[in-house]
Amino acid sequence: MSIRIGIMGYGNLGRGVELAVKHHPDMELAAIFTRRAPESLHPLTEGVKVYSASEAPAKKDEIDVLILCGGSATDLPEQTPYYAQYFNVIDSFDTHARVPEHFAAVDAAAKKSGKVGIISVGWDPGMFSLNRLYADSILPQGKSYTFWGRGVSQGHSDAIRRIPGVLDARQYTVPVPSALDSVRSGACPELSTREKHTRECYVVAEEGADKKAIEQAIVTMPNYFADYDTTVHFISMEELKRDHSGIPHGGFVIHTGKTGENAEHGHIIEYKLTLDSNPEFTSSVLVAYARAAYRLSKEGVSGCKTVFDIAPAYLSSKSGEEIRSHLL
Amino acid sequence: MSIRIGIMGYGNLGRGVELAVKHHPDMELAAIFTRRAPESLHPLTEGVKVYSASEAPAKKDEIDVLILCGGSATDLPEQTPYYAQYFNVIDSFDTHARVPEHFAAVDAAAKKSGKVGIISVGWDPGMFSLNRLYADSILPQGKSYTFWGRGVSQGHSDAIRRIPGVLDARQYTVPVPSALDSVRSGACPELSTREKHTRECYVVAEEGADKKAIEQAIVTMPNYFADYDTTVHFISMEELKRDHSGIPHGGFVIHTGKTGENAEHGHIIEYKLTLDSNPEFTSSVLVAYARAAYRLSKEGVSGCKTVFDIAPAYLSSKSGEEIRSHLL
Repeated sequence: MSIRIGIMGYGNLGRGVELAVKHHPDMELAAIFTRRAPESLHPLTEGVKVYSASEAPAKKDEIDVLILCGGSATDLPEQTPYYAQYFNVIDSFDTHARVPEHFAAVDAAAKKSGKVGIISVGWDPGMFSLNRLYADSILPQGKSYTFWGRGVSQGHSDAIRRIPGVLDARQYTVPVPSALDSVRSGACPELSTREKHTRECYVVAEEGADKKAIEQAIVTMPNYFADYDTTVHFISMEELKRDHSGIPHGGFVIHTGKTGENAEHGHIIEYKLTLDSNPEFTSSVLVAYARAAYRLSKEGVSGCKTVFDIAPAYLSSKSGEEIRSHLL
Repeated sequence: MSIRIGIMGYGNLGRGVELAVKHHPDMELAAIFTRRAPESLHPLTEGVKVYSASEAPAKKDEIDVLILCGGSATDLPEQTPYYAQYFNVIDSFDTHARVPEHFAAVDAAAKKSGKVGIISVGWDPGMFSLNRLYADSILPQGKSYTFWGRGVSQGHSDAIRRIPGVLDARQYTVPVPSALDSVRSGACPELSTREKHTRECYVVAEEGADKKAIEQAIVTMPNYFADYDTTVHFISMEELKRDHSGIPHGGFVIHTGKTGENAEHGHIIEYKLTLDSNPEFTSSVLVAYARAAYRLSKEGVSGCKTVFDIAPAYLSSKSGEEIRSHLL
């Protein structure tokens, strides 16, 4: 029998989940839930049921794992504990500072219902977290660095769009090559925010807008840009649509460490992602962890988990014998 | 209480384990076992007990995890199932084709004794295997490639040393840059053995030896060199000692995959290791998994496991709260 996947929220992430499920032979998309009018959605999957989010609890016996595709700011802190009352759930909660309280809320709900909730699944948090943990465990006499980009930051793009006179904008986070080199050298540098990343902004201004004022508003914006070397390029709407319509992202986790009698041997562990579509890759990770949630639930496990708690074999559609023969 | 580690076999790997244990505050080196005369060993750890291998079973209550540091060809197939009768054990068994039978033998012994045995721990098999599995699970519409090097192959160096007229030799396995580029392009190329790696040999010949004949014997050697583009450099013993005394290694696992409605988005997952000391890094991985074996055993788990079966959190000396706060 297939693992019956439900999608909660049909934005970029939800559509990515829908596409990813097709590549897993042991899964089927059972339903999509939305806060919009169900009939306004046009899913890519022939015949899939679309329900109002409020109907979800009534469908709990038709879904093995519900993948929550909302945002971390307001959706997931409410949704994940709520739906863990009825379903095994997975989310991509990425507000690092609020992980402990989110974990506690999901754990309480999932333990009460006997379900599994896996939080903070994606690439950061997610695959990058795993690489930080493995590297730190193997080479404790060492240091991990995380770099993001080159990629589109949605939050920073939105911040630029709120400036008067801006029609649209795209912001790229870019790692500084000399900082990457310094880390790879094993020197364990202390790097400031400014030394690690630069920010590139592509801005479409209204006709007649004061471009100098817009640029100044961007580069001095606290939290978002003031601590970085930021460059601003004014382009036309046509150029924005032609050259900046994708949502690429990626980055690096680099850990350098020492071994030997006198720390004479250096080692570099480097994990790098280069992603054409940030939401579609995140969705692909969510779907693999949905398989883990299903299997853990079948084994009688309940409560909140993170990627740290999941044995890698649970992610694969292949049997233990197969993965030992072909991937070990 | 500390996790009491035992080392079976005191070669490069055993010494690497001894050095690694010092960097884990929750571990202590309890004993070293050797097939040589115990008094002939000179451990780096003050006061550590050295016993004859034959005494190991009698010390079973003094050791929480025994790390087996022998070779895969003849030592581990016998040692790992044997010592699993008495201890939680970890090995670095790396004969891929014989993993199924080794797994079965260790599983039977460990289930009978109620102990945990973790096999094939290191970087390949080990960290590379994990990266193949994670990537294959996340992007099933894709393909993984493994490249080794630049690094010293002990087996190939030994094969050269057996040629008449050769005093000493060092062989490096080197990935072909254009093959790496082709893989990273997402083209999913089919690559022959010759296209993936080249082999560089540094050879010290006896005075008056026929260098042409030695070179010919190397480059035509079946299994070892005949399928590769191999270059042979004759150097002096002084040069060998000065420039080739280290045991560096490393390599790449690169997975490219597609997502999207029409596979229009490409993604590259790349894991790269650059290691000054192959045995010391392998030892560092073994020690982290020793912690996992200890914890699983405390939970009542028994039988044979691989890196695929171990949740990452078991490797870390840090608590669940700590890793969620600082590494997630």
